[in-house]
Amino acid sequence: MDTDVLTIMGTRPQFIKCLTLRKEYVNAGINEILIDTGQHYEHNMSKVFFDQLDQPPPDYTLSNGGLSKLKMLSSMIKDLEILVAKIKPKCIVVLGDTVSTLAGSLVAKQLSIKLVHVEAGLRSFDKTMPEEQNRIISDHLSDILFCPTNTAVKNLTDEGISKNVYFSGDVMLDASKRFKKYFVRPKQLPPEVVRGNYDLITIHRADALISKKNLLKRIEYVLDLSNSFFKLLLIHPHTAKKVKEYDIDTSKFISLPPQGYLETQWLLQNCTHFFTDSGGMQKEAFFFKIPTTTMRDTTEWPETLGDGKNKLWNSISEKIKSQEENPFGDGNASEKIANYLKNHLRT
Amino acid sequence: MDTDVLTIMGTRPQFIKCLTLRKEYVNAGINEILIDTGQHYEHNMSKVFFDQLDQPPPDYTLSNGGLSKLKMLSSMIKDLEILVAKIKPKCIVVLGDTVSTLAGSLVAKQLSIKLVHVEAGLRSFDKTMPEEQNRIISDHLSDILFCPTNTAVKNLTDEGISKNVYFSGDVMLDASKRFKKYFVRPKQLPPEVVRGNYDLITIHRADALISKKNLLKRIEYVLDLSNSFFKLLLIHPHTAKKVKEYDIDTSKFISLPPQGYLETQWLLQNCTHFFTDSGGMQKEAFFFKIPTTTMRDTTEWPETLGDGKNKLWNSISEKIKSQEENPFGDGNASEKIANYLKNHLRT
Repeated sequence: MDTDVLTIMGTRPQFIKCLTLRKEYVNAGINEILIDTGQHYEHNMSKVFFDQLDQPPPDYTLSNGGLSKLKMLSSMIKDLEILVAKIKPKCIVVLGDTVSTLAGSLVAKQLSIKLVHVEAGLRSFDKTMPEEQNRIISDHLSDILFCPTNTAVKNLTDEGISKNVYFSGDVMLDASKRFKKYFVRPKQLPPEVVRGNYDLITIHRADALISKKNLLKRIEYVLDLSNSFFKLLLIHPHTAKKVKEYDIDTSKFISLPPQGYLETQWLLQNCTHFFTDSGGMQKEAFFFKIPTTTMRDTTEWPETLGDGKNKLWNSISEKIKSQEENPFGDGNASEKIANYLKNHLRT
Repeated sequence: MDTDVLTIMGTRPQFIKCLTLRKEYVNAGINEILIDTGQHYEHNMSKVFFDQLDQPPPDYTLSNGGLSKLKMLSSMIKDLEILVAKIKPKCIVVLGDTVSTLAGSLVAKQLSIKLVHVEAGLRSFDKTMPEEQNRIISDHLSDILFCPTNTAVKNLTDEGISKNVYFSGDVMLDASKRFKKYFVRPKQLPPEVVRGNYDLITIHRADALISKKNLLKRIEYVLDLSNSFFKLLLIHPHTAKKVKEYDIDTSKFISLPPQGYLETQWLLQNCTHFFTDSGGMQKEAFFFKIPTTTMRDTTEWPETLGDGKNKLWNSISEKIKSQEENPFGDGNASEKIANYLKNHLRT
């Protein structure tokens, strides 16, 4: 059977987006193959989620974890060329802005396969961020672009990209709605931590981890501003390694290892304030209307600012909140994407 | 000693650009290291030129020839990461639009090294061309962009790139002027072929070689339109392989193997009409005012059209010739680039 869609992904947020899309592909009669590049190799970061939701695992899982970004890119390109040439899909779907997105995009175009970018058009306007570089490249290489917001559509227009650009809404909003009933309290969470008495903190971005000074700045910033009794630090493996290496005192926090998507969402939905340097979780907090401080100078989600409750740590004046009622769509982005692709692939 | 500029290149046209730049770097007191990625591995395609002009060879020569585009990209990224991390240059200079340009650009940005693109802003507006993909990516990743023409500057503006964009003029025009006195008649050229009695033909692009039909179409097109007594086919190794594989009759041509830059320029300067699918050679023909037919549907050098003497094979009406007196600058692009970089690196 011909493969309509080959999806290439490798991080947890991408798994989640894939799953909301996969359901709609099935509904639309689109035949999909899923490759996990192995970018996030921790069991907790990937397999758990497929297990939790009773989903079949990816069709292919590559081994690319634990490498430098460039070694990972080099290795993914090599592996993907062989697989993609074998599968010969009608199109390749990439999501977001990771190394997997970049590798999938380069391989698709070099093999002259139609490239589809889901979550296209985001810009933080900070080109030193690898994610910004990845999304710019994927957007400029893509044949079909699905944007989560109208801001994203406009960003693409400003770069001369207007053909086959669609505002689909955000597939993460779909996921947030669809999986809400499955959200679950993490087993490791001490029983005294309950809804409303804790702040949630995530720190994982490269520029936070690059020096002791940078990491300490974020830790102290949170301790300074957090008013809740418990400070819950959801600690990414990279961060844990650096905390140890830099010998940073985190005894005022309750540290939890990385959680599955459903546990993370539970923690986010029930916290009082959220401190983060994550991209996607800013937006999930926005969906739940949780007050958020983004410990970065820029955000690729300006819709969450203003009384959207998100604030950048250096912000002097707050930006005006988006005038739109639902800047991220109506929670049916996946269905729109699947239907568009169905029609497109049949013609 | 610190390295100011690390230049990454791998094809013959890139060697030539490097050499014009290198001389000006020396004049400006800029310290340069040169890496040859080994993209073009034929002796005739690379080493000859350095020998001919008594130039020291590149500081590093990698082994990446004869691989598929993606294997080459994967392998270059792996090799370059190690070398670049060791050399720690103040900036990386890439040229044009080859796989080497792409690999160098990705490595520079992932290692947070300033990226400089020479020959920035060219667009054929055909995104199915790998070269178009490569130049778009390099342009969007670059920190400093040197454009050969004002059209190129405008192309970048249209894509939202305006910071650190400079019209330097074209380094190939510099090369054409500087090396003119060294142009030399190829030794293998039969004595009866002389200035004015032959047309020159080059065919090497992937879409020409992908099928017997495509290659034959070009061969027959030339035989149909060429009026000169001799038809001189300068035959790229890839083309030679395909001519044999497809069993195409080229007996009406005189075939010559790839020549050094100086021989190629001699052939170009003395031919009556030039048939090509090359990018850069269209422009060299324009420098010499040689009537040219570009066997492609698009060109990244619109300045050569109209009574610039270049014509696309499918062109119905000719485009208006550029209004500029010297669309490619004044032949001092390399000097301008070196001086800019000198000032930039010192501050």
